[in-house]
Amino acid sequence: MSTTPFPLLQTINDPADLRRLSRADLKVLATELREFVLQSVSQTGGHLSSNLGTVELTVALHHVFNTPEDRLVWDVGHQTYPHKILTGRRDRMHTLRQLGGISGFPQRAESVYDTFGTAHSSTSISAALGMALAAKRKGDNRHAVAIIGDGAMSAGMAFEALNNAGVADCNLLVVLNDNDMSISPPVGALNRYLAQLMSGQFYAAAKNVGKTVLRPVPPLLEFAKRFEQQAKGMVVPATLFEKFGFNYIGPIDGHDLDSLIPTLENIKSLKGPQFLHVVTKKGQGYKLAEADPVAYHGPGKFDPSVGLTKPATPPKQTFTQVFGQWLCDMAAQDPRLVGITPAMREGSGMVEFEKRFPDRYYDVGIAEQHAVTFAAGMACEGVKPVVAIYSTFLQRGYDQLIHDVALQNLPVVFALDRAGLVGADGATHAGAYDIPFVRCIPNMSMACPADERECRQLLSSAFEQDHPVAVRYPRGSGAGVAPLAALDGLPFGKGEIRRERKGEADSKASRVAILAFGTLLYPALEVGEAIDATVVNMRWAKPIDEALLREVAERHDALVTVEEGAIMGGAGSAVTEALNAMGIVRPVLQLGLPDVFIEHGDPAKLLALQGLDAAGIRASISARFLPGNAG
Amino acid sequence: MSTTPFPLLQTINDPADLRRLSRADLKVLATELREFVLQSVSQTGGHLSSNLGTVELTVALHHVFNTPEDRLVWDVGHQTYPHKILTGRRDRMHTLRQLGGISGFPQRAESVYDTFGTAHSSTSISAALGMALAAKRKGDNRHAVAIIGDGAMSAGMAFEALNNAGVADCNLLVVLNDNDMSISPPVGALNRYLAQLMSGQFYAAAKNVGKTVLRPVPPLLEFAKRFEQQAKGMVVPATLFEKFGFNYIGPIDGHDLDSLIPTLENIKSLKGPQFLHVVTKKGQGYKLAEADPVAYHGPGKFDPSVGLTKPATPPKQTFTQVFGQWLCDMAAQDPRLVGITPAMREGSGMVEFEKRFPDRYYDVGIAEQHAVTFAAGMACEGVKPVVAIYSTFLQRGYDQLIHDVALQNLPVVFALDRAGLVGADGATHAGAYDIPFVRCIPNMSMACPADERECRQLLSSAFEQDHPVAVRYPRGSGAGVAPLAALDGLPFGKGEIRRERKGEADSKASRVAILAFGTLLYPALEVGEAIDATVVNMRWAKPIDEALLREVAERHDALVTVEEGAIMGGAGSAVTEALNAMGIVRPVLQLGLPDVFIEHGDPAKLLALQGLDAAGIRASISARFLPGNAG
Repeated sequence: MSTTPFPLLQTINDPADLRRLSRADLKVLATELREFVLQSVSQTGGHLSSNLGTVELTVALHHVFNTPEDRLVWDVGHQTYPHKILTGRRDRMHTLRQLGGISGFPQRAESVYDTFGTAHSSTSISAALGMALAAKRKGDNRHAVAIIGDGAMSAGMAFEALNNAGVADCNLLVVLNDNDMSISPPVGALNRYLAQLMSGQFYAAAKNVGKTVLRPVPPLLEFAKRFEQQAKGMVVPATLFEKFGFNYIGPIDGHDLDSLIPTLENIKSLKGPQFLHVVTKKGQGYKLAEADPVAYHGPGKFDPSVGLTKPATPPKQTFTQVFGQWLCDMAAQDPRLVGITPAMREGSGMVEFEKRFPDRYYDVGIAEQHAVTFAAGMACEGVKPVVAIYSTFLQRGYDQLIHDVALQNLPVVFALDRAGLVGADGATHAGAYDIPFVRCIPNMSMACPADERECRQLLSSAFEQDHPVAVRYPRGSGAGVAPLAALDGLPFGKGEIRRERKGEADSKASRVAILAFGTLLYPALEVGEAIDATVVNMRWAKPIDEALLREVAERHDALVTVEEGAIMGGAGSAVTEALNAMGIVRPVLQLGLPDVFIEHGDPAKLLALQGLDAAGIRASISARFLPGNAG
Repeated sequence: MSTTPFPLLQTINDPADLRRLSRADLKVLATELREFVLQSVSQTGGHLSSNLGTVELTVALHHVFNTPEDRLVWDVGHQTYPHKILTGRRDRMHTLRQLGGISGFPQRAESVYDTFGTAHSSTSISAALGMALAAKRKGDNRHAVAIIGDGAMSAGMAFEALNNAGVADCNLLVVLNDNDMSISPPVGALNRYLAQLMSGQFYAAAKNVGKTVLRPVPPLLEFAKRFEQQAKGMVVPATLFEKFGFNYIGPIDGHDLDSLIPTLENIKSLKGPQFLHVVTKKGQGYKLAEADPVAYHGPGKFDPSVGLTKPATPPKQTFTQVFGQWLCDMAAQDPRLVGITPAMREGSGMVEFEKRFPDRYYDVGIAEQHAVTFAAGMACEGVKPVVAIYSTFLQRGYDQLIHDVALQNLPVVFALDRAGLVGADGATHAGAYDIPFVRCIPNMSMACPADERECRQLLSSAFEQDHPVAVRYPRGSGAGVAPLAALDGLPFGKGEIRRERKGEADSKASRVAILAFGTLLYPALEVGEAIDATVVNMRWAKPIDEALLREVAERHDALVTVEEGAIMGGAGSAVTEALNAMGIVRPVLQLGLPDVFIEHGDPAKLLALQGLDAAGIRASISARFLPGNAG
């Protein structure tokens, strides 16, 4: 940050400083803030387009509202870098999303200005409504403001909140930050409707009325409506949001402080639920990001004067890419396959699939509940849906997984990306709970590929079944075992022994077998070599390969389970349940993620901190079973 | 059914029979069908009001559409008795909701006419859209129809589906069965809006236009809109549903076959997503149910000529009532308490609470996701929310439980009613998975009261904590241990030994300790007496009382865990995990619900079938640990 002094920005250590500035100075501040965001993100990586889009909105909100007394709830929260910079965290931006550094999302523990932790979308209106009604109960005269994007607005949860908020008697403001863009391009009727609201002269006219006119209702229509109401006893409010009971204001230009500030000041004096429609542009002010907001959604480090460049050496293939390739190949082979994503085309590796099979690609928007039951409906008709969904987002479709897919035993494949720790996104995105919450459901199966090759094979295995199967794989790349071209699956529910204990005759050491689920097989193999343990690649968290387990248990004194997922209820517990059911009694050491939320940071470092690298696994085994061989 | 011959109805064994009838005969059929439903439900118990409300709609749909080739998806599905009666199950209605009998909900395994299993609300549009798009893919020219109530329409999932369906090019019809009534009276902006649509002359006029006019647009408004569009480039469709891209028709009288049939016939010829707004009355045609649809929502057996009567002897107090009383008492003591329900005022025992504390009662509608995050928002502000939610419905708010409540460690109490098997409602409503899916979440705790007294005490314990706690209790009544008046809690995370093994000196039997979670403590105590086993009331599935567990494990040869919940990942696995973590090796027998979906039936019989009554528990223990003492 040393190259540019940011003379005004560096005087802002608290929003109170900002509330003292003139309109002209606020504009200067916004310019500096945008440049700071760009420089900062280019040095740390992180979310860019969305943050460039919220610069003026952030300045205006903190200028008009009395934060932190008034509550700002940022939906999703990846657009809060300007907010963080203005609320005392400017000097910590270089630690963003790094171990021990500040989070890429709002966090209550990080700042009093982060009133509600977010990261999954569409929670803000519910939370802000809770805060507004709590304030009312306590007689506090504060405001609660939810700032939500148009993509997040398409989720059912936002609708549930609107439906409640519109009839609530409290000081709630919903700011719709309409940039016509979630991570993937937007879909659905709501988005089309918002585009209509913004289209043509209406928007052009509205852009300039923020200062004086709060609700620019076309007068002839207004007259016609009143007449109709009298004549027919019917009310036809102007916008969808008014039908929900909100006072709708907008759309206004979200990059124009001369519109934003007077409009927000006017709204502040109004009672009841208010809805402000603000139009912004993702990537605003940085031409490269404006031109390709998807590419600049979450870049790594880059040189702002050059933009994103292709790395000189191609990066390792990711599990996401393995999935994307499998999906295309299987679709080419089996015309029954369709692919479904809740607004994660890029993240789930479905760009190529959409290109090649556009009529078999369904992006349902941020709508995980619908995605799962929509898949169930298709599966009823003999179509074979593959739902590509992050582990953490399947939590949003959990009831649908149980009630609509599993109970009816429908053949739907769930490709669970980002299973385990996710690195920079942190605890909110951790795919740590899927093994417990999936395997407790009857009819469900769950595969845990150990590497890229197995990922493709187990996806094929899943697709071959006539019941629902989830395949979980982590973010990023694995051991680097290249997938085979064939689409053959691996045997359903079967694991394999990858290393046999040599067991020298004079050894007094315990006979240890390590049972690995997923990619931690590779550190387990290292440990197996080091301490001469048997290593089993279990491959399936459900069903457990009981024959293999029995055979291994009978030949060993101690078992160790290893998984990148919660120990509580996880695959290790599945092993123990199977042993208990078979009446086999063995000491079992369960290694996995502990019962705490794990913050953001480099994934390899985080795994090591949890003792899930080779050194950690070896140390745990030695401490329990090999006291004389502690490393 | 022998008292009335139902001359026409008894000739209808398939909807094809019904499609041959004249309009006049269809009216006679509807009359007989309504009477049959009333007689049938009065003899079996079940859902009444909703089924009396769908008689004509069911007749009309099967008359107009070519079922089962055309797909009817009934939302929630408790209104499908007329549908079941007309689709070949008339003679099995006396077995409704009983062990081995037909389900109270649609089930794919039961009939080809039950195209999609439902029971949880708001899934129908997603499923029907999946079917419609699958039909389109396959070139099938069939229709898919979702029939959804106004209460179900308020759930986010329905909105997600509308948002997708409105822009889908397929033959989907959504029938909004608007009876202004979910189980609890309706709430929210959508409902208010629907009431506006139905109000005044508009509805009176629309009732009679079904035959000829498909969309009665007031002409002046239509003109004004066209003018405005030209002038301003803006589109303002007439209803909310048109904003979502549907062709909106209605509202029409859902009890008038002369409106329903021609309207549906017209719609059948239209392309693209259609939305028919039908107005019905819950309890229609049975005066007592019309007057009190809530009371007649799900009655037990009764005499139709008399109506519901109060039982001569008051029934045993239910856990639901214990919760309701606790909520009132704690609210009276602590002004920070608020109560939140997703549309389950009656079912969750909150009628009295609402009466006494109306401004601290929040019914958010069928909106579990919102309910949980709304509670989180309130908890941020020092309010102490108690979310009353069925175990099975918490599945709908699972991501919110993790991401909004647990991650921020907010003190929200979850009162999980209907934990375990639920009896007549069957597999869809089973509260079988909450122990695994809750306990894998960091910061969460979970109490399992053994009886009514402990239920009150553990609710108090939960309320005392500064972190989130779930308290799970089953449907119906328990051992009958009267709650104490005091609001004192039990120690957090601590169990108790309820029976000590006597251990006669000459006994060679294994020293067995039974660790019971929840109400199965009582059969466990019976078994403990019978086989001289120690019996521990564990009380908390999380945290596990490790000190007690260690002490008991050290004094016994074998442990048995007992819980009314899924074995996979359940409380028994929590015990095993704790033993593994402490390095204690003991044989453990885990008793609980097996890894299958368990159908409807009498709860006591179902528990016995799963071996979870005293006899079954004893048999399992004897078979494993006491081979010489097998009975």
